[in-house]
Order: sequence, then structure tokens, then C-alpha cells
Amino acid sequence: FESKLPNLGTSIFSQMTALANQFEAINLSQGFPEFDAPELLKKQLNHYVLEGVNQYSPSSGVPRLQQQIAGLAKRKYGTAINAGEQVTVTSGATEALFVAIQAIVRAGDEVIVFDPAYDSYQPAIELAGGQSVHIALHAPDYAINWQTVAQAINSKTRAIIINTPHNPSAKTLKQQDLDALKTLIVNHDLYVISDEVYEHITFDGTRHLSVMSDDVLFARSFVISSFGKTFHSTGWKLGYCIAPTALSVEFRKIHQYVTFSSFTPAQHALADMLEQQGQHVDELSAFYQQKRDVLSGALKESRFTILPSEGSYFLLLDYSEVSDLNDVDFCHWLVEQAGVAAIPLSVFYQTPNNDKIIRLCFAKNDTTLIQAAEILCQL
Amino acid sequence: FESKLPNLGTSIFSQMTALANQFEAINLSQGFPEFDAPELLKKQLNHYVLEGVNQYSPSSGVPRLQQQIAGLAKRKYGTAINAGEQVTVTSGATEALFVAIQAIVRAGDEVIVFDPAYDSYQPAIELAGGQSVHIALHAPDYAINWQTVAQAINSKTRAIIINTPHNPSAKTLKQQDLDALKTLIVNHDLYVISDEVYEHITFDGTRHLSVMSDDVLFARSFVISSFGKTFHSTGWKLGYCIAPTALSVEFRKIHQYVTFSSFTPAQHALADMLEQQGQHVDELSAFYQQKRDVLSGALKESRFTILPSEGSYFLLLDYSEVSDLNDVDFCHWLVEQAGVAAIPLSVFYQTPNNDKIIRLCFAKNDTTLIQAAEILCQL
Ligand SMILES: CSCCC(=O)C(=O)O
Ligand SMILES: CSCCC(=O)C(=O)O
Repeated sequence: FESKLPNLGTSIFSQMTALANQFEAINLSQGFPEFDAPELLKKQLNHYVLEGVNQYSPSSGVPRLQQQIAGLAKRKYGTAINAGEQVTVTSGATEALFVAIQAIVRAGDEVIVFDPAYDSYQPAIELAGGQSVHIALHAPDYAINWQTVAQAINSKTRAIIINTPHNPSAKTLKQQDLDALKTLIVNHDLYVISDEVYEHITFDGTRHLSVMSDDVLFARSFVISSFGKTFHSTGWKLGYCIAPTALSVEFRKIHQYVTFSSFTPAQHALADMLEQQGQHVDELSAFYQQKRDVLSGALKESRFTILPSEGSYFLLLDYSEVSDLNDVDFCHWLVEQAGVAAIPLSVFYQTPNNDKIIRLCFAKNDTTLIQAAEILCQL
Repeated sequence: FESKLPNLGTSIFSQMTALANQFEAINLSQGFPEFDAPELLKKQLNHYVLEGVNQYSPSSGVPRLQQQIAGLAKRKYGTAINAGEQVTVTSGATEALFVAIQAIVRAGDEVIVFDPAYDSYQPAIELAGGQSVHIALHAPDYAINWQTVAQAINSKTRAIIINTPHNPSAKTLKQQDLDALKTLIVNHDLYVISDEVYEHITFDGTRHLSVMSDDVLFARSFVISSFGKTFHSTGWKLGYCIAPTALSVEFRKIHQYVTFSSFTPAQHALADMLEQQGQHVDELSAFYQQKRDVLSGALKESRFTILPSEGSYFLLLDYSEVSDLNDVDFCHWLVEQAGVAAIPLSVFYQTPNNDKIIRLCFAKNDTTLIQAAEILCQL
């Protein structure tokens, strides 16, 4: 049997979590919170389950939730969204990314992807018959050279995938990045898939810049977000895509045949949560900034070099002073011998990469972060 | 913007449910139960949510649930399944179908589909770059002529999709069907996608024949099932795929980039349900047979001709004596003027079809079924 994805195995996140469990290591690898979803959210989920709201929702989502999502976009980015037409609830941001890529990428199309990149982009592009064109970004600032991007565009180029706040680099795009992006997509008739799943987690006063805030940009964009990241409920697998009506129509055609709809009672509970405790969203940045600072503070005396984290719940460490191993070997050593699980950065690159950098997830209790840092300080 | 699926709109199920709501009609169109999920299942879901089991499950599913699924297959079909390797939990059977098709269908491949067919098969095949080849089956018995199937096979043929018990015809495949299928796939090196989501709903002593019960057939098959149908919880969107290890490896590669994983607490609750109240599954056929009989009994005096229903929760009616309209127009008339929503059978056909047949879903309370029948008896 000939594989359609011969070069792919199990995702690094699954691998590392399995190793962390096997070696009883502190798991700072796969990105998920150690703390629980808000009480109200859990209470409301239970309420709707008991009340018997357990059958299919509309394929594009529970209307009340679509409305709340549109309201949040309006409040945060000033964008007027037609909830019924432009918001589609999905079974996680992963599904939203997959469907957006299927909606836009045709056989032979090229899609520009910035490395380091989230691991699902490339297989999704390949399965749509397209090809990903990788532009490598580098530590410490992972800045995009838009001149290089312009040179990578040709008649086959169909879309550009951006991700801000960025996983794994923890960088955010700036206004000049969005301006440059806009010029390119308008001039070359391209589409944007904008992965904004960490939109509510930015630090030191950094404002998240959504492609939604610009009409011209939004007119050609699929904007993808995640409730799992925002409400500490990664296992609920609920996300969404906001796109202009013409793109939403195509997105929904495909979504209805990929998962059709998502867990109904949780959609109602999320609508209640957004309605009744919308401040949770606004408090998230401060909540995670404190965690980032606990971890980076506790690592100050270590031999790791801490890279700046502007958003997301990730922190990059350069370990050149600690080990000569390549990053994959170092992460294996780290989980097996030192008892801390991290993600090697090279797995996010299709282009060769010899950086000595690992990614830590700080969506953990302070004691966990301090315990991990104590181990790392001894290396 | 040029659509990748130009001929597709909103699924008929979504359309008809929307019309049923708009016209306050009795909704026997989209297949979902009017009654609720079992108490234990809801209680256990709430238990795990409150306990804080709210983060990502392993991508292939919660191990306890994989084990229960394998145990059920063993008990029911005598097949020894390696739970860890061969069972993958998905976000509904729709996702499982989509992923299996993506795993097996390459650009240019042909896939044999029997009409009437569930509406997701063809778009999934097209999105994988393949082409569906439709073989029409007809009322009243919707029998497969395997000679015709053999003639449709050529060097491009990659797979055959079967569905038993069958939606919408309510027919089941017999041993001679599986034997004929086996001969074809072995001789022509084909794969099988076996949609068995109604496996636990068969009537009048009919035994469900799974492709799992035959080693040779199973070796080349993806077997797809649904918890929504079995546990009256279509809105929970949990299903699964059982496949031999080599096929499961490919299935999982794709699944991890389509949804990654599914609602974690519900997976634990389903494991408890299967462990503690396994008899629910065995009682399902009798439960639904009674419903089928209530509906068909109440329609006896009508001018509709009732077609035999061997399994699933659907019943077909021939309305030639009632109306001259084509089935789509008749269903619009029925929901708008008579107050009963049904599904026209021609929408399940790619091939031209002028049958005057509609599909009713009898997963409803007896009073609802009787009320609908009373209306239909007056036509
Ligand atoms: C879906 S598992 C990956 C979780 C995640 O977003 C990450 O660790 O980067
Ligand atoms: C996913 S909506 C369709 C439900 C169903 O299986 C049907 O009505 O045939």
C-alpha cells in the first residue's frame, strides 16, 4: 500500500506527549493547559446535556454562538461580521485550517508557508493537490522579508498562510507586515489563510492585529480561531472560521462533508460563556503573561538563552550553551534523562535547520513551571 | 471566485430541517432521534467534564474507548481487533468517511458508488482528486447486480463504497453480496469503504453482515460506524473507523491533520456506557423495529405504498398514487402545505431518477409518528 503522505508519521505533539507519559516527565511539549476550563463553561455544558440538546446543530454552528463570535470580532477589531453568513463553527481550529485549505487550493496551486510552521498546513495543502512553498524565518526575531515573499510568488501561487501570534516562535505580525501582505495579495490576486488561534494571548501591551481589521485584506481571507486556546478546553475541539460571504459559502460546502457539525451542547455553553463572562477573553493576556514571566524568571540563572515571547503560550530557548546535540536528539535526551518534555524547533521546518532551539509550553501551573525550570537550571 | 464544488449547495438534510422549522412541520427528514441519549451516558459525560478531563485526547482516541469498540466488534462479529492499532475515534462518521476516502483515493482514481448514495461520498472523492462512478439501484429491492459492478471496474478503479444497512433504501447486504464483493476486490486489487453506521439497527431477525466478519474482505476495508446513531446522540459527533493496521496507519496520518482528535469527555463517557450498559446496543433493533411498525401500521390505510425496511431508521414511501409532482417538488409541497418534512429520493442519485419515492425517518416518538401518519393518510 503506497502512502499518500509517505514522509509523514505521527505528529510531533503526539509523540512527545507519549514520551512524557512514558518517562513521567514534566510535559511542556504539546500545547495544552494544565488547568481546567472555567466553571461556568462546564456548568453550562452539563446543563445543555441534561436538558437534552444532544442532536445535530446546524452545519455552520449554533446561531447564538455565531452571534457571540461576531460580537467579539466587532468589539475587538471593529469589524462588522454577518454572523449567519460569515461565521462557521468547526471541530477545532485544525478542521477549520484543513477546510479553508481544501476550499481554496486546487491541483497544481502553490501556497506560501513560513517556516517554522504548524505541522498541519503542509499535509492539508498536499491532500488538496497543491504544493507548499516554504520561506524560512530565523531566530531571534523571525521577521518576514516581504521582498523574499514577493519573489516567491508566481502564476501558480494561490494563497499565503500567516499565523499571528505565531506558534512556535511566539512572534506577532506588525502593521507593516499586514500592509505588505495586503499589497501582495491585491497585486497578485491571492488569498490569505490567517491562523489567529492565539489572538487573545499577547504580552507587554502588544495588540493583536487581525486581518479582519482591514477590509481589503479581510475580503480575501479565512480567519481561523480556537476556543480550546481561549477557554482552556483543548479537548473540546471547537474552533471557527470567519470569512467574507463568498469564501464562507465555499468553506461551508466542504465543512458539511468533512464533519458536518460540531458537539452541540458545547456550542451553547460557549455562547453562554461569551455572553456572561466575556471578560475572560480580556483577562487572558495578563493571565498568560504572568506564566511567561514565572517561567522565564525561573530560567534566568540557567545556561539557556530565552527568546522574546510576544504572544501565544510558548517560549523558545536556545540551548547552544547546554548541549551539542541536534534539537531532536536533545529533546529525546531531555524527556528521557532530564524529565522535561519540549518540542524541537526543526520539526517545524521543511527547509534544513540547525538552530539549537526548543519550544516550551507555559500553559501550566506555576509550580509545574518552576519545577521544570529547576531541572533546566541544572543542565 | 471559482468553486471547487460548483454543483453543490447546502446538504438536503440541512435544507429540509430548516424548512421544517420554518413551516413548523413534523420533521421526518434529517435523520436524528427525537428522544434523548441514555441517562448514564449524559451523567458520565458530566462527570468527566467536572473532573477536568477537558484537554486533547490522543489523536486516535481514548484508549479505554478503543478497547470497548474492539470488544464490541469481537462480541458481535467474532473479529479480533487490535484496539490500539486498528480503531480510530473520529469526529463523527462523516469525518471517518472523509478521511478514509482521502487515505485511499489518489488523483485520477475511480471509486464505485451505488446510487442512492449518502451525500458526502461524492464530494469527498472529488476533493481527493478522484471520480465517483455511479451504479444505480432501484426500488423496490435496490439489489446490486455484481455483474454490472464487474463491468464498471477498470484499471483506474481504486475502491468500492458500500453501505449496509443502507441509507436511504433501508436494505441490507446479504452473504452473497459480500462474497461477490470479495471476489471483485481480490481479483482487481481494490479497497472497500464500508459505511456501517446503522449496524445495530436491523429488523425481523436480519443479522447485520459486517465486512469485518470476513478476514479477506476486512484486510482491504475501512469499516465506519457512528455513536450518534447507536446512542441517540447525533449532536455529539463521535464515530470511528476500524481498519487493518496498514490502512489504519494511513487513516491516522490524515485524521491527525483533519481534526486531530475528538471531544475528550464524551469518549470516556462512551467507554463507560459500553462497559456498563452494553445491552443498549443489543436492544436497539427491537426498539427501532417497534417504531418502524408504528409508522408503517399507521400508514396502512394511506395511498402511499410502503417499501420494506430491513434496517436503519428510515422508511421509503412510494407516493405515485398521491401526487404527480416530482419528488423534490412533492417534498416542498409536503413540508409547506401538509406539514410533514421528508427527503426526496432523487437527491441521492447522480444518475437521472424519476421514482416517486420519499424517505421518512422514524427515530421519533410514537405520538410524532402517528401524527405524521394521520396527515399522510389524508393525502
Ligand atoms: C493538536 S496537538 C498540537 C497542539 C498545539 O497546538 C501545539 O502544541 O503546537
Ligand atoms: C449529517 S446530517 C444527515 C443525517 C443523516 O444521516 C440522514 O438524514 O441521512
